[in-house]
Amino acid sequence: MADQNLQCVLAERPTGWVEPRHFRFERGAMPEPGEGEVLVRNRFLSLDPYMRGRMSDARSYAEPVALGAVMIGGTAGEVVASRDPAFQPGDKVVGMLGWQHYGVASGRALQKVDTTHVPLSAYLGPVGMPGVTAWYGLNRICEPRPAETVVVTAASGAVGSVVGQLAKAKGCRVVGVAGGAQKCRYVTEELGFDACVDYKAGRLADDLRAALPDGVDALFENVGGEIFDMLLARTNPFARIALCGMIADYNRTEPYAMRNLRMVLIHRLKLQGFIVSEHMDQWPAALRELAGMVAAGRLRYRESVAEGLERAPEAFIGMLQGRNFGKQLVRLD
Amino acid sequence: MADQNLQCVLAERPTGWVEPRHFRFERGAMPEPGEGEVLVRNRFLSLDPYMRGRMSDARSYAEPVALGAVMIGGTAGEVVASRDPAFQPGDKVVGMLGWQHYGVASGRALQKVDTTHVPLSAYLGPVGMPGVTAWYGLNRICEPRPAETVVVTAASGAVGSVVGQLAKAKGCRVVGVAGGAQKCRYVTEELGFDACVDYKAGRLADDLRAALPDGVDALFENVGGEIFDMLLARTNPFARIALCGMIADYNRTEPYAMRNLRMVLIHRLKLQGFIVSEHMDQWPAALRELAGMVAAGRLRYRESVAEGLERAPEAFIGMLQGRNFGKQLVRLD
Repeated sequence: MADQNLQCVLAERPTGWVEPRHFRFERGAMPEPGEGEVLVRNRFLSLDPYMRGRMSDARSYAEPVALGAVMIGGTAGEVVASRDPAFQPGDKVVGMLGWQHYGVASGRALQKVDTTHVPLSAYLGPVGMPGVTAWYGLNRICEPRPAETVVVTAASGAVGSVVGQLAKAKGCRVVGVAGGAQKCRYVTEELGFDACVDYKAGRLADDLRAALPDGVDALFENVGGEIFDMLLARTNPFARIALCGMIADYNRTEPYAMRNLRMVLIHRLKLQGFIVSEHMDQWPAALRELAGMVAAGRLRYRESVAEGLERAPEAFIGMLQGRNFGKQLVRLD
Repeated sequence: MADQNLQCVLAERPTGWVEPRHFRFERGAMPEPGEGEVLVRNRFLSLDPYMRGRMSDARSYAEPVALGAVMIGGTAGEVVASRDPAFQPGDKVVGMLGWQHYGVASGRALQKVDTTHVPLSAYLGPVGMPGVTAWYGLNRICEPRPAETVVVTAASGAVGSVVGQLAKAKGCRVVGVAGGAQKCRYVTEELGFDACVDYKAGRLADDLRAALPDGVDALFENVGGEIFDMLLARTNPFARIALCGMIADYNRTEPYAMRNLRMVLIHRLKLQGFIVSEHMDQWPAALRELAGMVAAGRLRYRESVAEGLERAPEAFIGMLQGRNFGKQLVRLD
C-alpha cells in the first residue's frame, strides 16, 4: 500500500513560461477515507488555464498551491471506498482531487454523475466547469439577442466552443478567434460558427474587420492582450464583454498594455470579470441544459487526451501555448 | 440688428492640445424664432471636457462640430421672444444654445427653471448635466453601500464634487483625487471628503496606498490614464467602476497604455461607460434631489467664471489643463 499513489506536486514557482522542472512526481501511500469521506480512483484529470495562476503567489482571487503540494485540478473517477452513505464503490464522481491517481474528499465536495448518456470525461468539459463558465458568461453578462454579433476568443477551446454553440442556438451571428487554419476550420465546419479568424495568420486587424462587418455586440473574452485590444476597437455601442480569461498575459512578466480602453467610455460598454465557482446557484440549471444538449448530440466538443499522469506537465505547458485542440485532459488509467 | 449676435465658431480641428487659433469669433445677425421656437439671451455658458471630443472628427458617440459652426455648449439665459405659448419673455431657461450671446431653439429643447432658491448658474452645474452625471454614475453604476470606500477622480470638479458629497450622504468613506494642495484642501475641508490625494505631489502610488487602507469598492472615474491604472490595482473584489471621462487622454495623440486591466478579471470588477444624456428618464428624480440639496445648503459647489465670451477659448483650454477650480462657466453679460 505504501507507494501506490502517484502524485504530481509543485516543485518551483514559474515566472514567465511554465517548464517541466516546475513539477515533481512523488509516490505516496494510498490515502485513507475518514468519517464522511470517500476514496476515489481518478480516471481523468482536467488541465485548465486557471492553474497557471495557482502556481504563482501573486495577488489573485485564489490561494496559490503550496510548494511541495499536489497540483490542484478537477478530476472524474470512480469510488473505491466510501465512509459517506451517499456513495458506493463504483459510483462515478467528479471533484477537485488534483494531479494524482487516488484522492480522498468529503462526500459534500463530490458530485455523482450519470454516464448513461453522457461520457465521464464530458463532465470535465461541456457538462462541467468549462461548460458552466460558457453558459454563465454568455447568459448572465453578454446577454445576446437574436441577430446580434457575438465574438468568442479561444473559440476551439473547452469554454469557447460551448459559448459559440449556445450563441448560435440563440440565433446570433457568431465569430470565433482561434490559432491556426485547422482550428478555424473545426470552429466553422464542425461547431457551426459563422466565421473564425486565425490570429496566427499575420493579418489580424484586417481579418477581424472583414469578419465583423456589423461590429461586435457581445464579446466572450478568454485571451486578453492584443486580440482583446483590437476587438475593443470594433465594439458597437452598448456592447457587453464577459472577461473570462487573459491567457495572453499569464506567461508574460509584464502585462500587455491596452490602448483601446477608451472604447468603454465612447461606446458605453459594460466589461465584467467573473469566476464561475462564485455562482454555484446557477450550476444546476446550466448543467441540466448542457447535459441535455450533449446527450442529444446538439453540443459538439473535442478532447485532447494525454496518456498518463507523467504526461500532465507537458500537456499543461502545451495548452498554455495553444497547442491543444479542444478540452485538454489527462487519462489516468 | 445685423451684427448684434457674437458667436464663437470652430476654426480648425486640434490634434493634441487645444489652442486659441482653433476658435474664431464672428458677429452675426440676431436669429429669428420660427413657429414653436424661442429666442434666448444666454447669460452663462458651460464649459465641459466633452467639448474637446466634438472638436475632433475621430469616431465617438456624437457628431463632431462642423468647421465654421458655432461651438456646442450648454447655456442658461432668459427668453427674449417666444413663438411657443409655454414660454414668456423673461422666463429663465436652460438649453444647448452654444458659444454665442443669442440663440434660437424649439421650446421642446428648452427647460424652464426656477431661480427662487437655486441660482441660475447652478442649473449648469450641480442641478444640471454635471450633477445628474454624478447622480447617475454613483447610483446606477457604482451603487455604493454604507461604509464602503468610494473614490472620485477630478474630485474638485463639477461632477466629482457632487459624486463625493452624494456618497458621503450615503455613509461611505469618500476619497478624492485632485491636482494641487489647494484643491485637495477644498475637497476635504469644504466638501467634507474623508481624504484627497494630490496627483501633482509626485508620490501618487504611495499616497493612494495610504489613503486607501481598505482598498476601493467603487470608483467614479473622470480622468483615466495613469491615475485610473493605479486605482485599478487597489480595487477590492466586486468593485464597480463608472467610467465617466478620460480627460487624461483627450489631449494625447496616443492613448495611455493601461497595464492593470487584469484586475477586472482577478477581482471580478464591473466597468461601465455611460453618457448621461442617454438616460433622460432618470433626470427628473435626480434634479429634484439635487435642487433640494442645493436649496437647503447641503450640496456645496464652486464656480470658476470667465467674464465675457471672448474669454471662452482660454477658459476652455485652462479647464482641459486642470487650471479651473470648480465648475467652469463663462458669463455672457
